[in-house]
Amino acid sequence: MTHKATKVVIITEKLIQEGVARIVEQAGASGYTVVAAAGKGSRGVRSSGRPAVVDAFSNVKIEVIAASREMAERIADEVAARYFENYSGITYLEEVEILRPHKF
Amino acid sequence: MTHKATKVVIITEKLIQEGVARIVEQAGASGYTVVAAAGKGSRGVRSSGRPAVVDAFSNVKIEVIAASREMAERIADEVAARYFENYSGITYLEEVEILRPHKF
Amino acid sequence: MTHKATKVVIITEKLIQEGVARIVEQAGASGYTVVAAAGKGSRGVRSSGRPAVVDAFSNVKIEVIAASREMAERIADEVAARYFENYSGITYLEEVEILRPHKF
Repeated sequence: MTHKATKVVIITEKLIQEGVARIVEQAGASGYTVVAAAGKGSRGVRSSGRPAVVDAFSNVKIEVIAASREMAERIADEVAARYFENYSGITYLEEVEILRPHKF
Repeated sequence: MTHKATKVVIITEKLIQEGVARIVEQAGASGYTVVAAAGKGSRGVRSSGRPAVVDAFSNVKIEVIAASREMAERIADEVAARYFENYSGITYLEEVEILRPHKF
Repeated sequence: MTHKATKVVIITEKLIQEGVARIVEQAGASGYTVVAAAGKGSRGVRSSGRPAVVDAFSNVKIEVIAASREMAERIADEVAARYFENYSGITYLEEVEILRPHKF
């Protein structure tokens, strides 16, 4: 017995991890997961002017299982609006099925 | 040419990684991937009574490409039944398409 | 307002990370994300003959948001064709929804 839910994925600079976490919490999500990440983005350089170095794990991948599609979109929109003019980042949604809906 | 498969995602405490791996193997899955993770869950504290510290990578994200939907659900159910009363954790399923079905 | 896109996931040995990145870039993708990973695969041993040690983070999980389904399949096919006879690896696709299509 599963329930559909929406996962929000945010890949961005480690510098703004706390700010993103605040947006996630204020949106009412009950939790999130953070993984250290490296990568190369469409700008080729980071916001700081440093070149995008693939080996440095200076990015984070933050994942949130949102209780509703609306919450997922709100989180993604707010993160992009607040940060993505000045910091590298992407965000996307994935449909998932959760097994214990009371935990989210 | 792709085949549909189900990915099981388990995010839990590093302490029980080996136990989860045994459940995965006993279910007949041919492999799994482990990534170090941090995060904050719905309980706010870990099972040990320590506060959930977001910066400490004391969690793991374990992913399994299951050969069948039934295997995926069995893995998720068994992990939750055996561990999630006593350890923090979530599990969810995602539909994926694999390109080399003979490898799974 | 979201757009559908295809995510390519490649889990393989860290040794060939640069070669995979070149395939991704030559396919025209504008970026990718790399996460350190451990795991156990269907072979049981690595290409080098070393046993597959689950605790050593000697693998990478590389993710690419492809602008088109065709690009996603081409990346996956080329990585498999060039490397998976000699290196451990799996690749699969996931459907995602991106919020800022102009960034991909």
